[in-house]
Amino acid sequence: MSTTGKHLRNETQILAEPDLPAIRITRDFDAPPQRVFRAYTDPDLVLQWLGPRRLTMRIDKYDAHSGGSYRYVHRDDDGTEYGFHGVFHEVRPNERIVQTFTYEGFPDAVSLETTLFDDLGGRTRVTVKSLMDSLEARDSMLRSGMDHGVREGHQRLAELLAHQQSDSTGPHGENGF
Amino acid sequence: MSTTGKHLRNETQILAEPDLPAIRITRDFDAPPQRVFRAYTDPDLVLQWLGPRRLTMRIDKYDAHSGGSYRYVHRDDDGTEYGFHGVFHEVRPNERIVQTFTYEGFPDAVSLETTLFDDLGGRTRVTVKSLMDSLEARDSMLRSGMDHGVREGHQRLAELLAHQQSDSTGPHGENGF
Repeated sequence: MSTTGKHLRNETQILAEPDLPAIRITRDFDAPPQRVFRAYTDPDLVLQWLGPRRLTMRIDKYDAHSGGSYRYVHRDDDGTEYGFHGVFHEVRPNERIVQTFTYEGFPDAVSLETTLFDDLGGRTRVTVKSLMDSLEARDSMLRSGMDHGVREGHQRLAELLAHQQSDSTGPHGENGF
Repeated sequence: MSTTGKHLRNETQILAEPDLPAIRITRDFDAPPQRVFRAYTDPDLVLQWLGPRRLTMRIDKYDAHSGGSYRYVHRDDDGTEYGFHGVFHEVRPNERIVQTFTYEGFPDAVSLETTLFDDLGGRTRVTVKSLMDSLEARDSMLRSGMDHGVREGHQRLAELLAHQQSDSTGPHGENGF
């Protein structure tokens, strides 16, 4: 059982859905939905975890509310930039985010991403379903190395949440959360 | 060949894609892409054709540009209202619109719609690909009677375009197009 040990239960799972042009990503975090949701929607927090450690991130826009839009750029050591943008169809606080997603290297490819925050009783299961318009687009996404960035991003998010928790329960009190 | 006769070539085709949770809708119009695109993006024009004749339409918002959003309501004779809303991921003038779509009777169901305007040399082929998150959602959409509304909407759009054309080439000159 992957849910019995703390290490395993917090492992990122990335699965191609067998009959759909979709990828499902799941991971549990040791923080309640309110805090995890905020880390997904507050640009100051998103900046601290989204993507792999080796890239620096710049956020041009991150209006995480229904009808808002976003754009951010990841930058390599050699200065190469990777831009991403989309719109938020729905941001339902602490429950669900539905957004579009385009990597600007392939401007005609659009995916629809639904992120769910399930309350496990103080902990949170995050499920992302990313829907593409063909099985080829899905397989191309899986081959792009996105899995490494997703796993490392999740690890960074877990660290951010743990750090906030130790701050807010430590001698220095609240850290703004 | 469905492309040889004028009647057949302007027929609306609605197809479920065999291996994808998607519906593809195609129809040709006797007007260039610029005019068809405008009929899809100018709310004053959208109001004149979108949906079946028996419903009245109200537009609350229709910002058809990349990052914009929309909401409209169709109203039955008995006062029942059907709301629809979404966001525009990309509006590429005269070429392509990518938007999300939710019928508010099923607020958790979101589809991703890509509308392409292909220039057939003064005429335009409109292709709409609507992508859903399951084959069940697709089949439910097909069973909803949407095909009647789509076909009648297309017929109304063809009439609107023909009316504009006869206006702009007639003795009264331009009609604002």
